[in-house]
Amino acid sequence: MSLAVAHDDLVQFRRDLHRHPEPAWCEFYTTARIVEELETRDVDEIHYGPDVLGAERMNVPDDDELAEWFDRAKAAGAREDILAELEGGYTGAVAVIRRGDGPVVGLRVDIDALPIEEADAEHAPADGGFRSENEGWMHACGHDAHATFGLGAIDEVLASDFEGTLKVFFQPGEEQIVGGKPMAESELIGDVEYLVAVHVGLDHPTGEVVAGVDGFLAVSHFLAEFSGVPSHAGGHPEQGKNTVQAMAAAVQNLYGIPRHADGATRVNAGLVGGGTATNIIPEESYVEGEVRGETTDLMEYMDDKAETVLRSAAEMHEVEVETERLGRAPSATSDQELVDVVADVAGGVSGVDSVLERDELGGSEDATFLMRAVQDDGGYATYVGVGTDHPGGHHTSTFDVDEASLDVGVELLSGTVLEIAKRRP
Amino acid sequence: MSLAVAHDDLVQFRRDLHRHPEPAWCEFYTTARIVEELETRDVDEIHYGPDVLGAERMNVPDDDELAEWFDRAKAAGAREDILAELEGGYTGAVAVIRRGDGPVVGLRVDIDALPIEEADAEHAPADGGFRSENEGWMHACGHDAHATFGLGAIDEVLASDFEGTLKVFFQPGEEQIVGGKPMAESELIGDVEYLVAVHVGLDHPTGEVVAGVDGFLAVSHFLAEFSGVPSHAGGHPEQGKNTVQAMAAAVQNLYGIPRHADGATRVNAGLVGGGTATNIIPEESYVEGEVRGETTDLMEYMDDKAETVLRSAAEMHEVEVETERLGRAPSATSDQELVDVVADVAGGVSGVDSVLERDELGGSEDATFLMRAVQDDGGYATYVGVGTDHPGGHHTSTFDVDEASLDVGVELLSGTVLEIAKRRP
Amino acid sequence: MSLAVAHDDLVQFRRDLHRHPEPAWCEFYTTARIVEELETRDVDEIHYGPDVLGAERMNVPDDDELAEWFDRAKAAGAREDILAELEGGYTGAVAVIRRGDGPVVGLRVDIDALPIEEADAEHAPADGGFRSENEGWMHACGHDAHATFGLGAIDEVLASDFEGTLKVFFQPGEEQIVGGKPMAESELIGDVEYLVAVHVGLDHPTGEVVAGVDGFLAVSHFLAEFSGVPSHAGGHPEQGKNTVQAMAAAVQNLYGIPRHADGATRVNAGLVGGGTATNIIPEESYVEGEVRGETTDLMEYMDDKAETVLRSAAEMHEVEVETERLGRAPSATSDQELVDVVADVAGGVSGVDSVLERDELGGSEDATFLMRAVQDDGGYATYVGVGTDHPGGHHTSTFDVDEASLDVGVELLSGTVLEIAKRRP
Amino acid sequence: MSLAVAHDDLVQFRRDLHRHPEPAWCEFYTTARIVEELETRDVDEIHYGPDVLGAERMNVPDDDELAEWFDRAKAAGAREDILAELEGGYTGAVAVIRRGDGPVVGLRVDIDALPIEEADAEHAPADGGFRSENEGWMHACGHDAHATFGLGAIDEVLASDFEGTLKVFFQPGEEQIVGGKPMAESELIGDVEYLVAVHVGLDHPTGEVVAGVDGFLAVSHFLAEFSGVPSHAGGHPEQGKNTVQAMAAAVQNLYGIPRHADGATRVNAGLVGGGTATNIIPEESYVEGEVRGETTDLMEYMDDKAETVLRSAAEMHEVEVETERLGRAPSATSDQELVDVVADVAGGVSGVDSVLERDELGGSEDATFLMRAVQDDGGYATYVGVGTDHPGGHHTSTFDVDEASLDVGVELLSGTVLEIAKRRP
Repeated sequence: MSLAVAHDDLVQFRRDLHRHPEPAWCEFYTTARIVEELETRDVDEIHYGPDVLGAERMNVPDDDELAEWFDRAKAAGAREDILAELEGGYTGAVAVIRRGDGPVVGLRVDIDALPIEEADAEHAPADGGFRSENEGWMHACGHDAHATFGLGAIDEVLASDFEGTLKVFFQPGEEQIVGGKPMAESELIGDVEYLVAVHVGLDHPTGEVVAGVDGFLAVSHFLAEFSGVPSHAGGHPEQGKNTVQAMAAAVQNLYGIPRHADGATRVNAGLVGGGTATNIIPEESYVEGEVRGETTDLMEYMDDKAETVLRSAAEMHEVEVETERLGRAPSATSDQELVDVVADVAGGVSGVDSVLERDELGGSEDATFLMRAVQDDGGYATYVGVGTDHPGGHHTSTFDVDEASLDVGVELLSGTVLEIAKRRP
Repeated sequence: MSLAVAHDDLVQFRRDLHRHPEPAWCEFYTTARIVEELETRDVDEIHYGPDVLGAERMNVPDDDELAEWFDRAKAAGAREDILAELEGGYTGAVAVIRRGDGPVVGLRVDIDALPIEEADAEHAPADGGFRSENEGWMHACGHDAHATFGLGAIDEVLASDFEGTLKVFFQPGEEQIVGGKPMAESELIGDVEYLVAVHVGLDHPTGEVVAGVDGFLAVSHFLAEFSGVPSHAGGHPEQGKNTVQAMAAAVQNLYGIPRHADGATRVNAGLVGGGTATNIIPEESYVEGEVRGETTDLMEYMDDKAETVLRSAAEMHEVEVETERLGRAPSATSDQELVDVVADVAGGVSGVDSVLERDELGGSEDATFLMRAVQDDGGYATYVGVGTDHPGGHHTSTFDVDEASLDVGVELLSGTVLEIAKRRP
Repeated sequence: MSLAVAHDDLVQFRRDLHRHPEPAWCEFYTTARIVEELETRDVDEIHYGPDVLGAERMNVPDDDELAEWFDRAKAAGAREDILAELEGGYTGAVAVIRRGDGPVVGLRVDIDALPIEEADAEHAPADGGFRSENEGWMHACGHDAHATFGLGAIDEVLASDFEGTLKVFFQPGEEQIVGGKPMAESELIGDVEYLVAVHVGLDHPTGEVVAGVDGFLAVSHFLAEFSGVPSHAGGHPEQGKNTVQAMAAAVQNLYGIPRHADGATRVNAGLVGGGTATNIIPEESYVEGEVRGETTDLMEYMDDKAETVLRSAAEMHEVEVETERLGRAPSATSDQELVDVVADVAGGVSGVDSVLERDELGGSEDATFLMRAVQDDGGYATYVGVGTDHPGGHHTSTFDVDEASLDVGVELLSGTVLEIAKRRP
Repeated sequence: MSLAVAHDDLVQFRRDLHRHPEPAWCEFYTTARIVEELETRDVDEIHYGPDVLGAERMNVPDDDELAEWFDRAKAAGAREDILAELEGGYTGAVAVIRRGDGPVVGLRVDIDALPIEEADAEHAPADGGFRSENEGWMHACGHDAHATFGLGAIDEVLASDFEGTLKVFFQPGEEQIVGGKPMAESELIGDVEYLVAVHVGLDHPTGEVVAGVDGFLAVSHFLAEFSGVPSHAGGHPEQGKNTVQAMAAAVQNLYGIPRHADGATRVNAGLVGGGTATNIIPEESYVEGEVRGETTDLMEYMDDKAETVLRSAAEMHEVEVETERLGRAPSATSDQELVDVVADVAGGVSGVDSVLERDELGGSEDATFLMRAVQDDGGYATYVGVGTDHPGGHHTSTFDVDEASLDVGVELLSGTVLEIAKRRP
């Protein structure tokens, strides 16, 4: 089978996004470009702005930061009429193709980037002139490829005899696990019967496909901000309420939350800070961290314990603490029904020389929100891996996608959508 | 007695310095202005550049930061020929007046500022147009007044029948307790027989003088930098070597260093930080802190224990630690012989309505290095407090000096110098 | 099938042992009674004393405690000639039956008891007059039944047409996981090709059998003894070297050993103590604890980390620490080959109404040493569960064995031995 | 001056008490012997039983322990009619001598012993046949001498022309700082105008006297008992509520209570324990400790902080904690008025060759309750040191009193009482 979409178009689109990496809720350029492309196609509905997201969003940047990225997108040439709809950080988009009575199939791709300084030498994007133009930010996890997969699959489906409905979810804010939840709470997910989520790479080489990724750890990100009372550490140590002591007591005891017999748990105080000067009892401190669990229950067990530790550490040193959840994702499992379809389709995709039925992720992903939304309504979901030779690891400055895998992803995903529609009675 | 120097000149000089607050080893503008003023006077020797400082300086900023302040001083109008001598952060100056066979008297004033954003309303410097021009920095402890005291006292002594030698030490880097030690190790302190150090304010009102301040806690500032190994907190927590855990264990146990029967001790982890992201085991962390003791021995007891805690906390979590001492000052005591002189002189100073013989500082000061250098050679030293009505506390954004106290300080210090020379057989 | 051995004899023997519960390395009465019984049977070899145990034993009680239990066994009527061989705590026994050329089958039962005060009312042993006569100790885990299984199985095999070799290992010290290792290092295990270990209860009712128990966590027990320097807490806190501070730092950080991606880990500071009086800086402290892992490697990962934490906690507070391993057991897995045999046999055992192929233990057991010794030489092992209605949980004062299960165990184990011999080509 | 009382009588009485050391609230034998002796003298009132103690007593042993010591006292020959009054642990006695209109003078001596195993060789009490008969307990701080001082001083005063009232307080429970408070709350202290408390030894040799001991640290003893939920550390670590983790967090943070600018503070977790077995999450743990302060306010500052730490450490690990104050004493100062009297008298006492006006204790004492009760009513108090050559230090198994100092103490104290009466207008 050959693709309807040209390889060069896929490459060009991916590189455009690659040059404009954006953080969660700030994917203004990315969203605008996607919408712009969709408008040139025979798509039935294009949703963007507040109605692709359910009511509450976590960890939205402040107005200044939103404005900065907004302006940057505008300066980079994003269409202003589209941008206007995204104001306030309502990024992401959903494309809907309606072709008769078949099943409603969802495809989920994510679109955000990471706060990583991209390598500027011995690195294809640098050498090829499409290195990040947003200094300090980088598509270091391949979401530029994911968005390209989504657009390419639409082209393929449009060119086919597909019968059914296809919804492609271009999801914002996966890296901070903030986008999956509101998108899963939008009305658009309601009627999806089959959901395919996708990730490129994951240490699989170009030509390898994983039909069903599992082992998602449920995760919750927390921020605890301690505030106390400063005092001169020499003159009046007793007048201070010391937030660094509270923070240290919290850290020591967070890592000591009991292991659980029901499965794996995790905890990390990944980012901490506090104080102003050696001679001042520290007035402000914070811990930004995460807990995970093999199941959502285990994550919640850890999250509850973490809350208790943080609160009592504050009480211990007579300081205040405010805790906040910055992001969250449940665990999920790929359904065998869909895994079988993907595996079958993969066998016929050009360039695919290895099909793994299952693999473990060992990390977290908020695609799980959409997967569970579909599964909870009796539908099926799978999380597909599309291998790509990547020189550096994910989340490193030398990560890159082998662009040959763009075609593989497009063919695999569109083929899967068509096969689902075909098999469905 | 009336002053030879005009009040307005004192005010103008103080305000000039106030507009240009600079950190330790970056007092380029301040030093250049002092030297420039000294050159207009009948001073026998003006020392500046490396020879006012003994060999080793702690905590010198990196070249970029030095260059930035250097350029800023140049832009503010500091004389380039003087600046050239200060390159590399060799700030501070010593003025020497030799008038016959009398005693060698030293006067020590400090000249650096603090990283505090100055208030911009309901604050005399803001209202009077001499608010800090170096945003984020402020003369919030009155060292602008101290330098003015030094210059004014020189004028008074020059106008008098003083017989002896006067050395005025314009010391850099007191706030970070880094300037006292190298200045005390320069050759210039060697022959000083009487040393008078001075501080404005200290919660004493205008018109009050303290003839001998005591209760200096010996102090040592330390920096401990932990480096470990990052890993994905979900995927491979066991592959990380976690510096935040090490840092937290260190903090918990630093505050637990045993109290000492011989006197007061202090410890503070004043500034801490670590990690990069919630989902990464933190590779780098640091603690910047201090220990103090009522005596130098007690400070060293604390310092040794702190080192042990920091090293073993690193070992506990299998990470590396590098510790460094950023600044240090011993304790010291004001000699009764000089306290008596100051108290006697103070009684006759215009505007002085209250003379306290002794008071306790309860903090630290690296004037103690110079005091002890003199005392160790058989000389005498005292640390004098010159009251000033200050609206905000020291080290706050609303601190200010009542300029009426400039005259008090100049008269008290010059009077003391003359009285020492007079009493000396 | 009916048993050769009378139910009443099984009951009587079990109750005799139940009345004389003994700790690890002190099973003098128990061993002597077993040997005495074996001597009345047509057993080819009876091993007891040092040669049933490899060279090194962990956690042997001191001479006084050994002597106390030794004397108690004598007073309770144990045969003195047998006791003499056990002196020094060389408890345990191995019976060997050689009947022609068939396979060498091992059966492992353990014989020690727990430091638990037995219930004295509403409890069958109390009501039936066979409550523990060693106050404070109790067969609260059913090892009295295990020894009875072993003896009964010997009777059945002797009464059969068994062809092969049967070795029954009456193992001491399982509760403290100290007996398995030396018994697995004795020469007697060397030629065993099939090993069946057994446990009664485990929350399975009478009539239920588990053919292969898995999920043994590898475990290591440690003891860390800190020794410091006492001083008067009011007069000279600085002169002390505080072991309670070291112990607390160790505990906090032991629980914080990073979780491992490869599987479950555990850590517990189960027993701690320190100090002498409120006003004395504590000179001595200790932590007795354990680490576990889903695999032996994971246990060793935890054990290495624990050692590091203990050593550095001591260094942190300038005290000494001696660490010791008190007991240890690897993980192990039941081989499907033997699980199949047991399941098949169980189906035909009187009173068995439920056969589970597999179950998880979730705890630790040092039968794993013998299992792995056999498996490492190419043999097969399984760990069998024999259900029993037990009113209280294992390790509680109201635990008891439903004596109907004695017959089930004897028939199941002897049947398994015979079936192994039969199937073996 | 020579004494009315014979040296041999003093020695015999002291040795009788030395053979019968008793803990707080269990000084049955000691109290009975004192009362018996008082009854043979011309003393106006002898108080014992509940009326020498105000309402509330801390840390009274349980009934079993009281009964054991009660029976032991009876067996040792204590008079049963006296013992009957002491039942419930109402130990201690007050003797009152009324001789006309002079001042009311109090003398305070304490009578309890320590849980120390007395040396049994190269130790005068062992060699002389008066070693402790209560194994594990010892008069290792000289309170046997104190009681002897009290009785001897009564003899001397009775033999003199004393005019006034003398009240001798034989105080129980000083070592646990539990006796001073209730005795200071009895009505008997109400009219005392001058109080002299006394201690032997304190590292001063025989022949040396300290007229006024100061530097008492206020102290509070606390007991915190944590109770959680046990669970199997391998099978269900998450089901436990771990008190050892709570205890360790408490200890780490108790030592980290901020130092105070107003003066010396102390904290010690002197005695800790918890848990039952390596494989059980520890259900019970405790910390017995103390805080001290240079002033009573400072002690209370520490005590409040300790309470906060203990409570929040429990919350952190979701366990319960009960805290209790076991004993308490304020700080106190010797009044110069009385110090002068003692110093004057001391100069004339036989065998005294060195009189120190002042010395620092650096520890705690609950004589301070009686001292402050008198001082708060406008009276005067001093704490006198009577030197004695003591081979081992206080609170060690080789401590002993040079019996020559018995005469010194008796003469000094009675002389002071007479001199007070003489000087008083």
